[in-house]
Amino acid sequence: MALDRLIEKITELQNPTVAGLDPKLGYIPASIRERAFARYGETLEGAAAALLEFNKGLIDALCSVVPAVKPQCAYYEMYGWPGVKALHDTIAYARDKGMFVITDGKRNDIGATMEAYAAAHLGSVTVGSAEYTPFGGDALTVNGYLGSDGINPLLTVCREKDKGIFVLVKTSNPSSGELQNQVFEGGDTLYATVGKLCEEWGEQLPGKYGYSGVGAVVGATYPEQLRELRQSLTRTFFLVPGYGAQGGGAKDVAPAFDQNGLGAVVNASRSIMCAWQKNGAAEQDFAKAAAQEAVRMRNEITAEIGKITLK
Amino acid sequence: MALDRLIEKITELQNPTVAGLDPKLGYIPASIRERAFARYGETLEGAAAALLEFNKGLIDALCSVVPAVKPQCAYYEMYGWPGVKALHDTIAYARDKGMFVITDGKRNDIGATMEAYAAAHLGSVTVGSAEYTPFGGDALTVNGYLGSDGINPLLTVCREKDKGIFVLVKTSNPSSGELQNQVFEGGDTLYATVGKLCEEWGEQLPGKYGYSGVGAVVGATYPEQLRELRQSLTRTFFLVPGYGAQGGGAKDVAPAFDQNGLGAVVNASRSIMCAWQKNGAAEQDFAKAAAQEAVRMRNEITAEIGKITLK
Repeated sequence: MALDRLIEKITELQNPTVAGLDPKLGYIPASIRERAFARYGETLEGAAAALLEFNKGLIDALCSVVPAVKPQCAYYEMYGWPGVKALHDTIAYARDKGMFVITDGKRNDIGATMEAYAAAHLGSVTVGSAEYTPFGGDALTVNGYLGSDGINPLLTVCREKDKGIFVLVKTSNPSSGELQNQVFEGGDTLYATVGKLCEEWGEQLPGKYGYSGVGAVVGATYPEQLRELRQSLTRTFFLVPGYGAQGGGAKDVAPAFDQNGLGAVVNASRSIMCAWQKNGAAEQDFAKAAAQEAVRMRNEITAEIGKITLK
Repeated sequence: MALDRLIEKITELQNPTVAGLDPKLGYIPASIRERAFARYGETLEGAAAALLEFNKGLIDALCSVVPAVKPQCAYYEMYGWPGVKALHDTIAYARDKGMFVITDGKRNDIGATMEAYAAAHLGSVTVGSAEYTPFGGDALTVNGYLGSDGINPLLTVCREKDKGIFVLVKTSNPSSGELQNQVFEGGDTLYATVGKLCEEWGEQLPGKYGYSGVGAVVGATYPEQLRELRQSLTRTFFLVPGYGAQGGGAKDVAPAFDQNGLGAVVNASRSIMCAWQKNGAAEQDFAKAAAQEAVRMRNEITAEIGKITLK
């Protein structure tokens, strides 16, 4: 199952982190933007070309240090279909460099429609007698509000194509408790209830290292819930957003890991992408600054969790 | 607010329905597919060209009868970025023909990312000194699992650009009750709790006809909940999927409407798109068959709810 590939890559690099690729034009060095606009004009195509060049630079600098990237669909859709083409090209480039790609789309719908999303983001589609991989990520983030029949089509594609999913359980944003922390009559919160469903869904995608192909999104900004969920969801791998710009630190994410240093991958987006701006680096050093921040983050987290070993 | 424009269009055409545009290659007449493949090959571009021609035919035939279309993003993403370009072109064509466009993306994320989704689907984006409308729908379906700060950026764009949103409350699929029907300690179900939030969020987007710019998705397949929610959510306009292929009928959707025949728009996708296949029509009559089914659906529903009048 696909999360096994992520786990192996994390162990190989001794780095349980993922770099979020959420590019906005304002994060991109002026020289890259100007080159793209010179070629395509100040158009959506021009913006998309700048995004892609920025991403490629980041991927080149990160791929020997960081096991995975997580492009967030919203930042590509914001630049229209040319942006969505840049999403495709970014995924292909990162995979080509050996990185595991988590497409962050938080997709959700009824069963028939989830078949289409599963084909789009993790699977393939047939056109006449040809078969195409529309986006080709290794894993997709999804929202479980619609229950099992919105998840089952994904499990089918995950099994066939060696892919994984991450279901939103406890999100990192300030208002995540508004619904997620409410307690059902049986005594479980909404987030714990979705967590239990992840364990059930995961039974269909067992993994080699104790974690299934159905992961959970649990925010670094709620370390108490992170600890509680790590203890109750023993087969569920966590994608942990909220480190860095959103406020979570290494001590906050430590409870997400098991005694082998496995069990989670921690995401940082802005703190890596914008490291060159924050550190006052020259703009041609944007990728170097990103890699330096990624190494700093890796060191900070592994100092808390120790050596990562496969069971 | 944008749902006022939808309400006015519904009243003008005396038709409270929306045609779902969820095209799959298998729904499209062979002559359209062959023409597209002859030009672009059996490629994603070829598939997208076939989708767009099919949609344009449907829109031409439906625009004088049906007030709105609802393209479902998944069916476009399934054909990669060329499919997403066809989504953009479909939205533009439908708006050009005077139709109200509900982009069915069920998007959801943290606040900073929802700003990007809001710009993508309802707003605009700046590239250098130019401004672009990436997709330009009139309303977007969204998932409220992340709470208010995942919704607020949408409300800002809705206010500025005269747009609306529909939040998933009680979905039409068989397993929708798995989470949505569970009861919180306070006595409310999850779906009723999200419904109440819609009423609160809607206070920021008041409308001329008693309904706010924050609508709710409530499935035709659960008429009891539809009735309950219509009574409790007095300011919230409903988008009602599940009519037709999913099993809901006119009597099932009648409780979604108020005494003026307002308060809801009922979606049918496959029953309209595939009417030509179901009725054994010649394939060149696909659009005529869709319009006939749309008229039948309109007549069936308006027979239940009577004349639609603005308060």
